[in-house]
Amino acid sequence: MTYTTAILGASGYAGGELVRLADDHPDLEVVHLGAYTKAGERLGSVHPHLPGADRTLGSNDPADLPDVDLVFMALPHGASAAPGAALADRGLRVVDLGSDYRMDTAARYAAAYGTDHPHPERLADWTYGIPELFGEAIATSSTVAAPGCYPTSAILALAPLVTDRLIAPDGIVVNSLSGVTGAGRSLKPDLLYGAVDESVKAYAVGTHRHRPEIEQGIEHASGASVSVVFTPHLVPMQRGILSTITARPSGTVTPDHLNQALRAAYKGAPFVEVIDVPPQTRWVAGSNRCLLWATIDEPTGTVIVLSAIDNLLKGAAGQAVQCANVMLGLAETAGLPIAGWLP
Amino acid sequence: MTYTTAILGASGYAGGELVRLADDHPDLEVVHLGAYTKAGERLGSVHPHLPGADRTLGSNDPADLPDVDLVFMALPHGASAAPGAALADRGLRVVDLGSDYRMDTAARYAAAYGTDHPHPERLADWTYGIPELFGEAIATSSTVAAPGCYPTSAILALAPLVTDRLIAPDGIVVNSLSGVTGAGRSLKPDLLYGAVDESVKAYAVGTHRHRPEIEQGIEHASGASVSVVFTPHLVPMQRGILSTITARPSGTVTPDHLNQALRAAYKGAPFVEVIDVPPQTRWVAGSNRCLLWATIDEPTGTVIVLSAIDNLLKGAAGQAVQCANVMLGLAETAGLPIAGWLP
Amino acid sequence: MTYTTAILGASGYAGGELVRLADDHPDLEVVHLGAYTKAGERLGSVHPHLPGADRTLGSNDPADLPDVDLVFMALPHGASAAPGAALADRGLRVVDLGSDYRMDTAARYAAAYGTDHPHPERLADWTYGIPELFGEAIATSSTVAAPGCYPTSAILALAPLVTDRLIAPDGIVVNSLSGVTGAGRSLKPDLLYGAVDESVKAYAVGTHRHRPEIEQGIEHASGASVSVVFTPHLVPMQRGILSTITARPSGTVTPDHLNQALRAAYKGAPFVEVIDVPPQTRWVAGSNRCLLWATIDEPTGTVIVLSAIDNLLKGAAGQAVQCANVMLGLAETAGLPIAGWLP
Amino acid sequence: MTYTTAILGASGYAGGELVRLADDHPDLEVVHLGAYTKAGERLGSVHPHLPGADRTLGSNDPADLPDVDLVFMALPHGASAAPGAALADRGLRVVDLGSDYRMDTAARYAAAYGTDHPHPERLADWTYGIPELFGEAIATSSTVAAPGCYPTSAILALAPLVTDRLIAPDGIVVNSLSGVTGAGRSLKPDLLYGAVDESVKAYAVGTHRHRPEIEQGIEHASGASVSVVFTPHLVPMQRGILSTITARPSGTVTPDHLNQALRAAYKGAPFVEVIDVPPQTRWVAGSNRCLLWATIDEPTGTVIVLSAIDNLLKGAAGQAVQCANVMLGLAETAGLPIAGWLP
Repeated sequence: MTYTTAILGASGYAGGELVRLADDHPDLEVVHLGAYTKAGERLGSVHPHLPGADRTLGSNDPADLPDVDLVFMALPHGASAAPGAALADRGLRVVDLGSDYRMDTAARYAAAYGTDHPHPERLADWTYGIPELFGEAIATSSTVAAPGCYPTSAILALAPLVTDRLIAPDGIVVNSLSGVTGAGRSLKPDLLYGAVDESVKAYAVGTHRHRPEIEQGIEHASGASVSVVFTPHLVPMQRGILSTITARPSGTVTPDHLNQALRAAYKGAPFVEVIDVPPQTRWVAGSNRCLLWATIDEPTGTVIVLSAIDNLLKGAAGQAVQCANVMLGLAETAGLPIAGWLP
Repeated sequence: MTYTTAILGASGYAGGELVRLADDHPDLEVVHLGAYTKAGERLGSVHPHLPGADRTLGSNDPADLPDVDLVFMALPHGASAAPGAALADRGLRVVDLGSDYRMDTAARYAAAYGTDHPHPERLADWTYGIPELFGEAIATSSTVAAPGCYPTSAILALAPLVTDRLIAPDGIVVNSLSGVTGAGRSLKPDLLYGAVDESVKAYAVGTHRHRPEIEQGIEHASGASVSVVFTPHLVPMQRGILSTITARPSGTVTPDHLNQALRAAYKGAPFVEVIDVPPQTRWVAGSNRCLLWATIDEPTGTVIVLSAIDNLLKGAAGQAVQCANVMLGLAETAGLPIAGWLP
Repeated sequence: MTYTTAILGASGYAGGELVRLADDHPDLEVVHLGAYTKAGERLGSVHPHLPGADRTLGSNDPADLPDVDLVFMALPHGASAAPGAALADRGLRVVDLGSDYRMDTAARYAAAYGTDHPHPERLADWTYGIPELFGEAIATSSTVAAPGCYPTSAILALAPLVTDRLIAPDGIVVNSLSGVTGAGRSLKPDLLYGAVDESVKAYAVGTHRHRPEIEQGIEHASGASVSVVFTPHLVPMQRGILSTITARPSGTVTPDHLNQALRAAYKGAPFVEVIDVPPQTRWVAGSNRCLLWATIDEPTGTVIVLSAIDNLLKGAAGQAVQCANVMLGLAETAGLPIAGWLP
Repeated sequence: MTYTTAILGASGYAGGELVRLADDHPDLEVVHLGAYTKAGERLGSVHPHLPGADRTLGSNDPADLPDVDLVFMALPHGASAAPGAALADRGLRVVDLGSDYRMDTAARYAAAYGTDHPHPERLADWTYGIPELFGEAIATSSTVAAPGCYPTSAILALAPLVTDRLIAPDGIVVNSLSGVTGAGRSLKPDLLYGAVDESVKAYAVGTHRHRPEIEQGIEHASGASVSVVFTPHLVPMQRGILSTITARPSGTVTPDHLNQALRAAYKGAPFVEVIDVPPQTRWVAGSNRCLLWATIDEPTGTVIVLSAIDNLLKGAAGQAVQCANVMLGLAETAGLPIAGWLP
């Protein structure tokens, strides 16, 4: 059986990856591509690397959508609340790659984003979309808010260690290095080649709005409240997130304890792999995998965990398709690449 | 007055920068360039970007050196102990960019490097070469061990905060991102373009041998023992170090306290600047400056300090020339660039 | 039906791409991975981005090969002549990605490579493997020499224009820009990140050994002798070839003539597309497509043709799989990506 | 004696380089920095890599300029005609890095740019600013139009060969590879990191407006009319131009003839060097040098010339300062770097 799907926000980087993955997916058929200012243009003018260049981009307005089996929304922050509500009212399955429905309460949303949520009564309807941790809830949900790259890389690394009480819930430090596509495709001086190439920087230091989401995700998965210091960095590469995480151990903890806890948590998970050496982002570029590795810094006893994903796959479009697979009862791996593509 | 100088290890990246800086220096005259396997070759075949291409590389053997006023050694780890001792015996001033004479005791050297120092009785003769912190000792020393990029970026950021008791001496986490020239010019699979481009990785996690040097440097500057977790990362760019440092505050600390302490410590220092925004490495590429910025992560109260340098200048050749200036009684800034060159 | 296959030279960049493509291919089963010095290692230690990390690399010796349906050889220049002959003698189908069997006569081989071919009597047995131009011969051949990136990009662009007598056969200038993986994975100073990043260079100017192959390929496809000036360049990127070609027109030629000739020649070819704007290599990174575009420089009347491919796909592993598909009677597109993956 | 100078368009990439060079220049004093939308901002907010961050950007309006000894204009195409005329009327020396006064006649300007020149009667007052070819005219001129990166790299390579009748004046093909700063600092989708990184493209194929300037420059230097096919390419790097040029020889020409003609032409020129191997752009990044090398493609007899410069130095700000040095009677090399800085 083939499921029809629409992709709103198809002109961005994550949208383009959704088109690529959905086109190749054995069980999905893309019937609508939505865009804002690019509506009316050929797909080929926006994503020249994709086949089907003569498809025309349509509207992002949910009223213009046919009755599809599932809608992907890859829209800017704040832009998915209204269409998400409208599509849910129509009874359509929705996977939102945006941040509007990720926080579980109006208070947390307001704390994270500094504004009130326009549909606070809807927040409880949405399931947080990390299949490895919340797969059962996703399978029975028709509205899923798939997290982005920073929270995914950090939550997958930390949740099992907090659950198993191997690390203290406070004093956790997450330093993440992100490729540039994580910042989107919009036209900003900070994203010019001349501003990015041959340089690194930390940004939103102490203020990044995805920190509360990281804390909430770990809490939901583990049942324990945690506090996290989160510092994102921009690195001159297209894709990839590497999170380097330090935490204080709870009691006597060895590297084996850590890696065994991670392995046990993700046993049977096709996309999360605990490896024996520190992961590099080139090992996951183009893949939906998340690579984890943990150790102990001997002199100080500090726990160090490393987590690598492709921000556009496991950190965006790949995870959204994975959620859709779970929602539709398909194989979790359907249409999703395991192999990366970098030498 | 012009001082004659020799540069051992002139064929590497740091050696090339020394040649460039010393050639342009108003008070230095380069009279000998040493190399190992490249001895006998033209400078132009090794550093085609430098003028004076027809100069011939000579030997790295100190016995082949004329009596110069000052010798720079940019040799691999373990290779400077013997020539350093020999040159000191001849009464020549020496600035060692290598790591052989940086630790202050044989025990610390053995702990850091896992081998015994070949000339442990000499260690006390060498001065640790960060002019902003140890300038008086450098001015009266004839043998200076200039630290490399990771320790310089971390010690400059942390020493004043530890001295002023603004941060706790334990629980300090240093995450550093390094450009590729920091790894040197030798032929290793990990340094191929195909292995570095479009990827980031952490390496030597929990085991990097410069961690003890960071701790020692802070201790010498502040008088307090500290423990540091240090995780270096390789980033796809030529130059630059960004260190992102977290620490627990000592008592009630505000961002102003932190930045004022840094400003006070480096008042009058021509190369260290405390700025109002998080620094980017492109702001210091080509410059001998170190840019610092500190803040408090409000939700957790954690201190965050950022430190950016060019690993080949303030983290290697620039710092070595700065030490030489201090040793020779020249202006500290002589021959050293303040302006960066990016984009 | 599934065809068993072996991949010799699996540890290089092209070999890794072959493993990736063959693993995903619906009709191929990889039963042997060969290597030289890496024999005995896990695939995961050589290609950490690929699934099946626990597969062990075996020998490159044809004597160690089981009787598979088809062997891919991705070996260095000079290394495929002997195993190619041995495997052909065993009656196995072989696709050689190397250069040993691409020239059609011993004289041409000697002229191109400066040495005598070790098995000159075999040269006539091998078919030159560009399916769009020599598909019928490939379909009935059991030994195919698939060309590499430079010849493929140039021959696909030029052959139809020479065949249709739209350009003069002499005075053709081919300037090609290549990503670094085109130079292979071996450990050379010129391939270090520090030597490649932020720089471009021409190399093998006037002497590149693939120039005769370009001329031969066009001659075989068109029946006309041509002479070509070929200048390859190394560009700081992983993948991609862009060939910028100039030629004198034969008679009165318009841009439409050129593009129509190209479109007619590749009508029905699934991987060659003539587009309306100058192609960029990012549009084909990860894809087996070749993008072509031609125009006339008005003031001088010069023909300009641009050709873009991914050097590891249409310029290496993708083309080899495409040849295998044709040899085995499979769909030409089986297992081959059309969509690219950049950004 | 110190000459006062103003820099209009100080906020762009070339403007920033002018500030850097002029600040370090022993004989220049910068007294005014002009900008359009950035007027009123601190220099440090626009060029954080430069010292003197607290200098305020002023206006680009010539009426706001004090009476300085020399004005540099680094303004967009079309924007320097009016201020150039106004400043000339005030009797100030002007070096224009823009294209408004480079063509020698109104007809040529209209042919190159498709619009009429606003001050055609002024064109004859301006001297074309390549000191190696037009130094005497520059020395006696008060208004100099310094050419940009593409014409400089091509004209320096070709003019001596045309002058000496070593190459035919038609059939010249110039393929140039440019770093991204050559396209300026404005906010365009094509200049985003995601659009530039890991890709190459040709652009303005057959239509680039600097082609007529290349032809005019060669004609002025050699006295012979030439026609050139010019194809610029964008390459993922910050700086550098490599021009790969092919031409038909005039009579019997050897590589020695070519290189000797180039050496003779640039004997005594401090910034142009004819070397023995193909130049790489990393050898000139940060330097005002132009590296040249010529050879003959043996099979076809074609002349190949390679030319490498830093587009922001010899192709923009460096050349402008060189012109200023000549106009002011200073040493031609004053304040200009010979050494490059890569890696």
